[in-house]
Amino acid sequence: MVTTDFILAASEFSLIQTYFAQLTRGRSDVVKGIGDDCALLRGHPTELLAVSIDTLVEGVHFFADIEPFRLGYKSLAVGLSDLAAMGAEPAWFTLALTLPENNAAWLESFASGLAELAVQHNVQLVGGDTTRGPLTISIQVHGHVPETSGLRRDTARVGDKICVTGTLGDAGAALNSRLTGLNLQALTAEQHDYLWSRLELPTPRNTIGKMLRQCAHAAIDISDGLLADLGHVLAASHVGAVLNVDSLPISEALLQLPRSIATELALTAGDDYELCFTAPANKLRQLLEADVEVTCIGEVTTVPELVLVDHAGRVFETPQTGMGYDHFKQ
Amino acid sequence: MVTTDFILAASEFSLIQTYFAQLTRGRSDVVKGIGDDCALLRGHPTELLAVSIDTLVEGVHFFADIEPFRLGYKSLAVGLSDLAAMGAEPAWFTLALTLPENNAAWLESFASGLAELAVQHNVQLVGGDTTRGPLTISIQVHGHVPETSGLRRDTARVGDKICVTGTLGDAGAALNSRLTGLNLQALTAEQHDYLWSRLELPTPRNTIGKMLRQCAHAAIDISDGLLADLGHVLAASHVGAVLNVDSLPISEALLQLPRSIATELALTAGDDYELCFTAPANKLRQLLEADVEVTCIGEVTTVPELVLVDHAGRVFETPQTGMGYDHFKQ
Repeated sequence: MVTTDFILAASEFSLIQTYFAQLTRGRSDVVKGIGDDCALLRGHPTELLAVSIDTLVEGVHFFADIEPFRLGYKSLAVGLSDLAAMGAEPAWFTLALTLPENNAAWLESFASGLAELAVQHNVQLVGGDTTRGPLTISIQVHGHVPETSGLRRDTARVGDKICVTGTLGDAGAALNSRLTGLNLQALTAEQHDYLWSRLELPTPRNTIGKMLRQCAHAAIDISDGLLADLGHVLAASHVGAVLNVDSLPISEALLQLPRSIATELALTAGDDYELCFTAPANKLRQLLEADVEVTCIGEVTTVPELVLVDHAGRVFETPQTGMGYDHFKQ
Repeated sequence: MVTTDFILAASEFSLIQTYFAQLTRGRSDVVKGIGDDCALLRGHPTELLAVSIDTLVEGVHFFADIEPFRLGYKSLAVGLSDLAAMGAEPAWFTLALTLPENNAAWLESFASGLAELAVQHNVQLVGGDTTRGPLTISIQVHGHVPETSGLRRDTARVGDKICVTGTLGDAGAALNSRLTGLNLQALTAEQHDYLWSRLELPTPRNTIGKMLRQCAHAAIDISDGLLADLGHVLAASHVGAVLNVDSLPISEALLQLPRSIATELALTAGDDYELCFTAPANKLRQLLEADVEVTCIGEVTTVPELVLVDHAGRVFETPQTGMGYDHFKQ
């Protein structure tokens, strides 16, 4: 805590007690939770601690008029997705919340959104700081992962299949409908809502992430777009890839758009928070037979470049309509 | 990482590589540091993990014209002070940095300030997120503490002596010289600089914090002012206290001000990041004989109230000139 918080120490504590109380209990490995200078936590006896911190800023990462429930949900989803990409089991999170004003209804709804995911993933709020300022949310997540099975970015191998979870481009379509006037009139109201849910209520893939410990060589979550994030894996692993753009998993809703636009969004738009991973073909069978949404879209190659082809093997040029992942960029 | 960071993933990584590289190495318990979805850390085999997150916002917690070196230093000091108050040994930190622009000179200086303290305390940067927005710094610190010796707020006992480290009110004097026109003309230039160093380059008391594991019952760091922070300890422990205002440790610089002002600042101004702790008299001897700056200022009592007295035992009324710890508050 610091001197000049507008919500003073005592009221800050009661703020947490009032709105976030449901998030601050439940785990026996929390020796001392919210309310002291530090939380005291009992680590896993044999596994590594996995940690990741992410910040969401109003007007940069979300629209000012987002429902606070959805903002709370998404703020935690982003962190859980990082744990999923490492195959880590979620345990705890901390919240640094900067708010322009102390608004009870807003806080209640924001906390409910956080709680929705926190309960699902058995992850407990163990520390926080609330300050006055432009709306900014930093969340750090903590999880545990066996040392031998941590998924990384730098461990893809030549010959690995490249797979993704779920469908791609949905969140990007919602974002572009508002930012660049992407026309969604061909969609039903239900399909429209689906795309917005994908942007504002992403599903972190923690169950699949843990299954990947057994079969995958490398993994990353797709927050910046498939090409950008797969690019990180390839660069870190010193390998290349061939992707078949016709095998990209595209949702029913996104299929209502012209195929070239759907493909571009699936390749370059971010915010879907799906996983992209590489695994040897013989280890994939079990995963593909399980009831999980996984699609193989390409293969890791020796030549350090990313080549896109269509179903007939023709090289595919990425369209440059500007619907990529850097839209809030000025 | 999220979709719309203005500093894109690749350049974000190189930003960290360029300016923060010196902070990202050195500890053998960091299995995987900066550059993946999560950092992977090896916990202490027997001790608890202590974590704390704090946010500093421009115009709320620091002046817009603060030297970036000092801002970097202070951002980490605030977290280390929380670890000190728990008697924890610092290990790692993460940094969520929201910046209005990508300014190389600023980043270099900010990183140097962080590094100054990080090297001193052998604490390594293991994760980060850089985003565009109003200048906001969230730092989470991580440390280790034996389960049997964690200092808390709720464990003060009747009869304990109440002690503080260092001197009190220095940071508040600097703050008030700028915010409320507190007159510092009686001070030498050196004394003036000293007060500003106390505000902007606070010394986290981690060495003393670890020594307190052996002798103290309760501890807290003084970030919101002695009365407010000691108040947290008393409330959490269901006890009261008598403080002798004439025994408050006041610096040579602060003694240049009228005594009533110096006393008020020592009682109510925050940002000094000294420790306040309670301990039985018989366990204090060793600490007081060691070469550490510790002063006993009172005693824990049964009646749940905080009574101020002077050296003659007369009840002392706190002056209300408004130089307390909530100055940025509108």
